[in-house]
Amino acid sequence: MSQLLRVQNFSVSSDGIAAGENQTFENPFGFDHTALFAWAGATASWPNRTEPGGSRGLDDYFTRDFAHNIGAEIMGRNKFGPQRGPWENHDWLGWWGDEPPFHTPVFVLTHHVRPSFTLSDTTFHFVDGEPAAVLEEARKSADGKDVRLGGGVTTIRQFLDADLVDTMHVAVAPVTLGSGLRLWETPDELRDRFELEIVPSASGMTHHLFWRK
Amino acid sequence: MSQLLRVQNFSVSSDGIAAGENQTFENPFGFDHTALFAWAGATASWPNRTEPGGSRGLDDYFTRDFAHNIGAEIMGRNKFGPQRGPWENHDWLGWWGDEPPFHTPVFVLTHHVRPSFTLSDTTFHFVDGEPAAVLEEARKSADGKDVRLGGGVTTIRQFLDADLVDTMHVAVAPVTLGSGLRLWETPDELRDRFELEIVPSASGMTHHLFWRK
Repeated sequence: MSQLLRVQNFSVSSDGIAAGENQTFENPFGFDHTALFAWAGATASWPNRTEPGGSRGLDDYFTRDFAHNIGAEIMGRNKFGPQRGPWENHDWLGWWGDEPPFHTPVFVLTHHVRPSFTLSDTTFHFVDGEPAAVLEEARKSADGKDVRLGGGVTTIRQFLDADLVDTMHVAVAPVTLGSGLRLWETPDELRDRFELEIVPSASGMTHHLFWRK
Repeated sequence: MSQLLRVQNFSVSSDGIAAGENQTFENPFGFDHTALFAWAGATASWPNRTEPGGSRGLDDYFTRDFAHNIGAEIMGRNKFGPQRGPWENHDWLGWWGDEPPFHTPVFVLTHHVRPSFTLSDTTFHFVDGEPAAVLEEARKSADGKDVRLGGGVTTIRQFLDADLVDTMHVAVAPVTLGSGLRLWETPDELRDRFELEIVPSASGMTHHLFWRK
């Protein structure tokens, strides 16, 4: 089987918004993102879960799949940190703590490359390149497994525009945000290239599952 | 996390029937089981898939989860073969071919034990014991992972009656069979002990997800 590029557990509002426009160090999403992400944290398999318990219903199948057959992640610089422009220094090692939840090589897209470093079993590489070239590099490092496209929304749009995404799971929250960074006006935009199955969950989220036609 | 006992991808008719009463060598399910299992074979991740392709929608999340964190399987003798009573000989090695899809130790429940054997990376053990004792043995062999309860329906009933099942995914087909071996009269029977989430799929199946309260 080929190595897929997969978007997983990406949450947006009912009007397609995934993040605010004013991302800061204190506020990584640029808005109150509780309504978008509470569904994932409630599941037994959420990677950041620290206490036992959690649901094992439909939503759990999605969080359970987070690391399944994933050998690398690609993320935008804004998912790594709030800095813009040249790095003032390399002291800060990202939002993900000493035990990042990735456990694979992670390729951070940036025009301002810096040396790779490793935290626990996650190595962050900083790469400046076109999506296709970065994907090729990530695939080589993924040990034959799939590559996760981790977001944020601008990065996902970039890879969708380059037609590099193979499967995409987007969880749509029952909340309207009005303004912010948008994944889509409507998921129907993607129907020309993707099959789309829409599955409502007891949590109130509506899971959108895309795979290439 | 503890080692769960999980039922996965178990299919029944809308009236709860999982197999016919006249299982034979030529007819392992005792009836035409196409209506119960077509959903799984149509997915990209079905373990027995030999050609590329297949859907990557909701149903695929269930087949994809088949081997995820599973370290052993328990199955009834009827899932291994159609023989009843003492083995006439040990020549026949089960319905699963030279490359069984389990890739773990498999514990076959039988009152007629026979020597263990290995096909590819699956080892079949034959055990005569109460469900709790067999589960303990399977857990020890599972390398810290979960144990799959593979069926058939009589075996699942036995472990449900002993209150040993932690999670259960049952796919209910839009077909009525009338007679045969029954998992339940209605899934509501299990609501006293389990949370139940019911999820319709585009394939026409209705996925029933149970987890302990």
